[in-house]
Amino acid sequence: MVKVGVVGATGYAGEEVIKILVNHKDARITELQAVIDKEELFSSIFPAFKGKVDIVCKKPNPPEMAKNVDLVFLGLPHKVSMELAPVFLKAGKTVIDLSADYRLAPDVYKVWYGIDHKDKENLPKAVYGLPELYYDQIKKAKLIANPGCYPTSVILGIAPMLKEKAINIDYIIADSKSGVTGAGRKPDLALSFSEVNENLKAYKVNEHQHKPEMNKILSEVAGKTIDIIFTPHLIPMNRGILSTIYLRLNKKLDTRAALEIYKNFYKGKPFVRISDEGKLPQIRDIVGTNYCDIGLKVTGDTLIVVSCIDNLKKGAAGQAVQNMNIICGFDETEGLL
Amino acid sequence: MVKVGVVGATGYAGEEVIKILVNHKDARITELQAVIDKEELFSSIFPAFKGKVDIVCKKPNPPEMAKNVDLVFLGLPHKVSMELAPVFLKAGKTVIDLSADYRLAPDVYKVWYGIDHKDKENLPKAVYGLPELYYDQIKKAKLIANPGCYPTSVILGIAPMLKEKAINIDYIIADSKSGVTGAGRKPDLALSFSEVNENLKAYKVNEHQHKPEMNKILSEVAGKTIDIIFTPHLIPMNRGILSTIYLRLNKKLDTRAALEIYKNFYKGKPFVRISDEGKLPQIRDIVGTNYCDIGLKVTGDTLIVVSCIDNLKKGAAGQAVQNMNIICGFDETEGLL
Amino acid sequence: MVKVGVVGATGYAGEEVIKILVNHKDARITELQAVIDKEELFSSIFPAFKGKVDIVCKKPNPPEMAKNVDLVFLGLPHKVSMELAPVFLKAGKTVIDLSADYRLAPDVYKVWYGIDHKDKENLPKAVYGLPELYYDQIKKAKLIANPGCYPTSVILGIAPMLKEKAINIDYIIADSKSGVTGAGRKPDLALSFSEVNENLKAYKVNEHQHKPEMNKILSEVAGKTIDIIFTPHLIPMNRGILSTIYLRLNKKLDTRAALEIYKNFYKGKPFVRISDEGKLPQIRDIVGTNYCDIGLKVTGDTLIVVSCIDNLKKGAAGQAVQNMNIICGFDETEGLL
Amino acid sequence: MVKVGVVGATGYAGEEVIKILVNHKDARITELQAVIDKEELFSSIFPAFKGKVDIVCKKPNPPEMAKNVDLVFLGLPHKVSMELAPVFLKAGKTVIDLSADYRLAPDVYKVWYGIDHKDKENLPKAVYGLPELYYDQIKKAKLIANPGCYPTSVILGIAPMLKEKAINIDYIIADSKSGVTGAGRKPDLALSFSEVNENLKAYKVNEHQHKPEMNKILSEVAGKTIDIIFTPHLIPMNRGILSTIYLRLNKKLDTRAALEIYKNFYKGKPFVRISDEGKLPQIRDIVGTNYCDIGLKVTGDTLIVVSCIDNLKKGAAGQAVQNMNIICGFDETEGLL
Repeated sequence: MVKVGVVGATGYAGEEVIKILVNHKDARITELQAVIDKEELFSSIFPAFKGKVDIVCKKPNPPEMAKNVDLVFLGLPHKVSMELAPVFLKAGKTVIDLSADYRLAPDVYKVWYGIDHKDKENLPKAVYGLPELYYDQIKKAKLIANPGCYPTSVILGIAPMLKEKAINIDYIIADSKSGVTGAGRKPDLALSFSEVNENLKAYKVNEHQHKPEMNKILSEVAGKTIDIIFTPHLIPMNRGILSTIYLRLNKKLDTRAALEIYKNFYKGKPFVRISDEGKLPQIRDIVGTNYCDIGLKVTGDTLIVVSCIDNLKKGAAGQAVQNMNIICGFDETEGLL
Repeated sequence: MVKVGVVGATGYAGEEVIKILVNHKDARITELQAVIDKEELFSSIFPAFKGKVDIVCKKPNPPEMAKNVDLVFLGLPHKVSMELAPVFLKAGKTVIDLSADYRLAPDVYKVWYGIDHKDKENLPKAVYGLPELYYDQIKKAKLIANPGCYPTSVILGIAPMLKEKAINIDYIIADSKSGVTGAGRKPDLALSFSEVNENLKAYKVNEHQHKPEMNKILSEVAGKTIDIIFTPHLIPMNRGILSTIYLRLNKKLDTRAALEIYKNFYKGKPFVRISDEGKLPQIRDIVGTNYCDIGLKVTGDTLIVVSCIDNLKKGAAGQAVQNMNIICGFDETEGLL
Repeated sequence: MVKVGVVGATGYAGEEVIKILVNHKDARITELQAVIDKEELFSSIFPAFKGKVDIVCKKPNPPEMAKNVDLVFLGLPHKVSMELAPVFLKAGKTVIDLSADYRLAPDVYKVWYGIDHKDKENLPKAVYGLPELYYDQIKKAKLIANPGCYPTSVILGIAPMLKEKAINIDYIIADSKSGVTGAGRKPDLALSFSEVNENLKAYKVNEHQHKPEMNKILSEVAGKTIDIIFTPHLIPMNRGILSTIYLRLNKKLDTRAALEIYKNFYKGKPFVRISDEGKLPQIRDIVGTNYCDIGLKVTGDTLIVVSCIDNLKKGAAGQAVQNMNIICGFDETEGLL
Repeated sequence: MVKVGVVGATGYAGEEVIKILVNHKDARITELQAVIDKEELFSSIFPAFKGKVDIVCKKPNPPEMAKNVDLVFLGLPHKVSMELAPVFLKAGKTVIDLSADYRLAPDVYKVWYGIDHKDKENLPKAVYGLPELYYDQIKKAKLIANPGCYPTSVILGIAPMLKEKAINIDYIIADSKSGVTGAGRKPDLALSFSEVNENLKAYKVNEHQHKPEMNKILSEVAGKTIDIIFTPHLIPMNRGILSTIYLRLNKKLDTRAALEIYKNFYKGKPFVRISDEGKLPQIRDIVGTNYCDIGLKVTGDTLIVVSCIDNLKKGAAGQAVQNMNIICGFDETEGLL
């Protein structure tokens, strides 16, 4: 039984981690912390947890939390995580960080986040927590950089073709559509109901901070430098990311052959499901689950990939727990089915 | 041609006033002001107004605006309006205030808004801008207290029965459901998409600040003190208020007879429409319009009234322009059909 | 281990029963039937069940299903259930019927559903499956009339006050707001996205077919004939019912005292939660759960009750499984937490 | 004053044509027809039109309608329009057809719609009603093939670059996102609220029937055969299409230079607005208007175009009225601002 703490317990990702752990047979939540006005029962802040998580949510105090946990989930804004993680690591605890702070090399981090990285000691030891690609490293990790939501959907949608060397790596387009929880729980006019509802927009076109993360991992997979074109869109729904990816084939492949490649690549991976030929996944198939569903269609020399995840599950909290399961030697799917 | 200014031009109500005035043949917008970071073209802030409202939106400066307008709409939070209105009134300008600042007696105001009223000089002169009840006073007004959205839908739904003395005034229940724009344009976690969407809640049950406003006007209509029960609910939609009102009849009336009373009461009122027997209005019938649609059903000695308005039109900006039309001697419906 | 069949497996309620049973440790789905074009894997129709429910969904054939189940859930339209249930009952199987067919006396049924009841033999033996009121009868039942969604939320919100004889039974108002899944999965223009979204309406005002069901049960609880006023509304959200109930107190009670009555009444009932004083439940607290959350507010001699359920869980499938658990002697909450 | 009839008056496009014509100073609606159960006042079917369109909506009878109109809008499903249009044309009336029936060559029509074209006499005379490209032909047309919603947004987003010969015509990707009214008003499970809300999907990937229409017009503009890649997506909102288009530049161009090309191309076109550098249009900028807003961003040798329209206005009814204005010699923008 692993003792678990969550910092940032009141954010969407933190809340979701807690929701998963409530039903996890090998983990027990012992500590919750968040930036809140007053310390009170977590179930008082979120009545849905009444009778399930009746422990006090405290204000952030990492040294205090470190005394009573084996492993900690950090559901914090970037720039904040890298200030807290070292405290836990120094105390010998395992850290699964859901922010972007440990996903990029320090120079790239500075370019995209505008400040110097504050934990250069631990940064090189961080493992990118995408189990479908980095399972062996995750097994031994003390610090997990849990992937971003967009990168999870895009990388899983492209990786098999890169491994197969079957596509032109110079022209990869990912057109992603995300629900609103992807932006976090915060007061923000741009995220208010009346602004988002009955609206739709592209934003940060090819300038989103998740782009360098995709480039880094895809380049590792390909063994060559990749720079994709990435357009995120905000959709009036709570949860889910659907990425439509356009790849140019450099081999003759039909849809069936492409599906075969994906099925082989993800054989034995419990959370990636490949759609049958002629079918494509949609958000309702995966919402509330930790699955990444992928469908394919070849037309001429173009492969169109549709990749769907729940941004709070496989795109954040679910994947974080999947990482915990691997690190702790639990069944990879425990709490996630 | 009346020269019009709008303070609070970037709020939902202010924006809606401007949208209406663009097509108004007797009014011209000459000045726009709002609390903004930098002064720029209004059409730059709201691209939808490109080619239509290409004048600069300035920071609030009432004395400056007063030089160049005949009439001003104040689309401001309560407590702010009563600080600005006197400037315009002193300069001889007509003021249509969309906040709650001029709707209540000073003692009641203090109870509900927590501070002393700051403009006791003008407060007694304010006319409640509900044309279906106060047309003659509005005609001569220099200061309009434009009604709240909930009160407009509830008062119009009850007034005919009060006049008819056909109901028990001791037990009036108004169960109102409102879209989210009713709460104004502001960063507020409780109004964020992910909190409102797929959710529904009652709030401020019988404690909403619009309740004393309803009580005051309904009491004036009845000639007796009325204290209603009022429960507002927040609905995941942008616009519209539907109030379901439960009245106990003290006379024998069927639905047809009740409809007759309402039709007579609102005869000649261009913006109230009474549904045919067997039909009830819904939000889609009135959204985007200045109509208040009212349907009735008698069951036993209970009269159920369904009253629908667009909270930004008849519940705010549309009614404000209707008031302007009456004051200025324009066709009451100009710009509103 | 009980062997379970579901007829109407592709409707919202049927699908939800299956979703719950997937994680139920004492029940195993052995048969699925539905009105479908061709028989295929259930997980082929609903990809979300891939790897979880990979059995074939067949066309309706009760005698065939009866051979291989101990208990059957009927997620069918009314008028259809009463034609199929007898087949299972005759074969000695337990039937939990989610339609309205076994909830009303035959004469009342005829009035509201327009046809003679077709199974007058079994109708008198049916037990109303609201465990908070009929636990002992449910324990011994072979045929459960699973409650409607509106009645569940309304009856649970009123019953404690009736038992306490603390309210005027002649004037009970229930103003209910429901998400769209409450209407079932079917092609219907009135339920299409563009008609429901950004809309809101009252419908079947005091004429909804769930009204006689409420009247029947409330009258049983009160020991006197009750005829409530009931207005349902359609809300643009997928799931959830919030009922705002207005009761006139005939005793002096404040909110705290009223809460005490409700807490006592529901003591030991695992799926009813009473909100703390000053708080009211909202849909997001209960969506996806089998809870009925109830909050209270006394104002003068009026008690306002807010009662929330997930219409597909406590309002249909969850309650159905709760009934199965009681009948089969399982933990009442198995599969439902 | 032109006398206008609408066949298919109760569909979304027909209703929208009527809504526009109500405020049109040079047109008068004289006849309405639709497939309905009983003939009644249009304002009885749609209460929002009370006092505005109080004429009877009749069942389809083209010869009867032809007697009393100068021009007719056909808001009908494809395959139906081509049966009715000849009646009006023979009677010397002008026809603006909003279906797909007159947009394709007969052989292509057969491939995509599965049947032989039934009006090969008039088909060659039909003019594609996209005024920004075919203004001079529209002026003289008797039969307008009003463009589809997706094609309008995509073609307007690509045409300037084709004219400029600045892009690689072999690899054009259009990723379009549409609101639900685009699918028409009809009972259809796939369009029901509970299926569409909180969901998102790609559909008919590169197989949508609007693709040959885009290919035909884009090929005419380019003077060469073009075959684009087109993925439509269904978004949980009522109205609006946003197309994100990916073009490969074959010349060195930055965003500013690209914007210059678009501004020149659309100079004098009242309904196309080009966003300033650094800004991109969103649905809320154009919803309810006849504008097509286009924004651009160059990154490397890729030009990303974001093109937004209201699918019922510029994508259907608005454009249809724009065509009527041009044909009749009215101001092109009459009724549309």
